[in-house]
Amino acid sequence: MLGTHYLVDYWNCRDLTAEQWESVLRRAIDRAGAELLDFRIEQFEPQGITAFCLLSESHLAVHTWPEKDFVGIDLFTCGTQIQPELAIDVLHESLAPIRSQIRRVDRGDDVATGESPEIHTALRSGGE
Amino acid sequence: MLGTHYLVDYWNCRDLTAEQWESVLRRAIDRAGAELLDFRIEQFEPQGITAFCLLSESHLAVHTWPEKDFVGIDLFTCGTQIQPELAIDVLHESLAPIRSQIRRVDRGDDVATGESPEIHTALRSGGE
Repeated sequence: MLGTHYLVDYWNCRDLTAEQWESVLRRAIDRAGAELLDFRIEQFEPQGITAFCLLSESHLAVHTWPEKDFVGIDLFTCGTQIQPELAIDVLHESLAPIRSQIRRVDRGDDVATGESPEIHTALRSGGE
Repeated sequence: MLGTHYLVDYWNCRDLTAEQWESVLRRAIDRAGAELLDFRIEQFEPQGITAFCLLSESHLAVHTWPEKDFVGIDLFTCGTQIQPELAIDVLHESLAPIRSQIRRVDRGDDVATGESPEIHTALRSGGE
C-alpha cells in the first residue's frame, strides 16, 4: 500500500468563509504532520468554494455545495510519518457536521494478489 | 447522490513529461464534457509530478511515483452533463497501464438511509 485516501463527506456543517476554510485546512495539515507546498481557494458565484492544498505527501481538496448543505473533502497522503486521522479530527471539530460519512481507500494496493479493494467506512453522527 | 468520484490507480504505465501530462489531462477533461478553470502542475525532484485541474464540476488530480511505477488519479465530478468514463478512456489509452485498479465512489449519498456506501471496482489488465 502506497497511500491512504480519506473521502470525507459532511452534511449540515458550519458555514465557513474562504478565510475560515484556509485557517481550518492549514491547521488540519499541520496536525497531521504534513507539509503544505501550495494553497489555492476558489470562490464560486453565487456560492460554494473549492480549495486545493498541494502537500509534499499528496493533497487535501475541498468542495462545498452550500445550497445542498454538503461538503466533500479528500485527504490523500503517502508515507509513514503522516497521521491523516488527526487532520480529520480537526475538520470534524471545526465543521461540526450533523451527519458525516468517512471512507478510507488504500491507494497502490498490489492488485496482482486478486484481493478486493479494502474500503473502510465510519459513520459518525452528532455535531459534537 | 451528488457527485461521482473515480479513483484510478495505474501501474507500469507510459512515462510522460509534464507537458505530455498536461496534454493528456486537457484531452480527458474535454472528452468528458467538463470545463477546466485552472491547471497546475508541480514537478518534484528527483522525480514525480502532481497535477491539479480545477473544474467547474469539481476536480481531476494526478500524483506519480515513477520510482514505484505507480500513478494515482482522482476524477471527482458532479452534475448530470458530465461523462467521467470518457475521460478515463482517454487516460487508459494514453497511459497504457500494464495493471490498473479503478474504483468508483458515489459522493453525497444519503447516509440517513443507513445503506452501506456503494463501491464499484473494475480491474483491467493489459496495456492495449
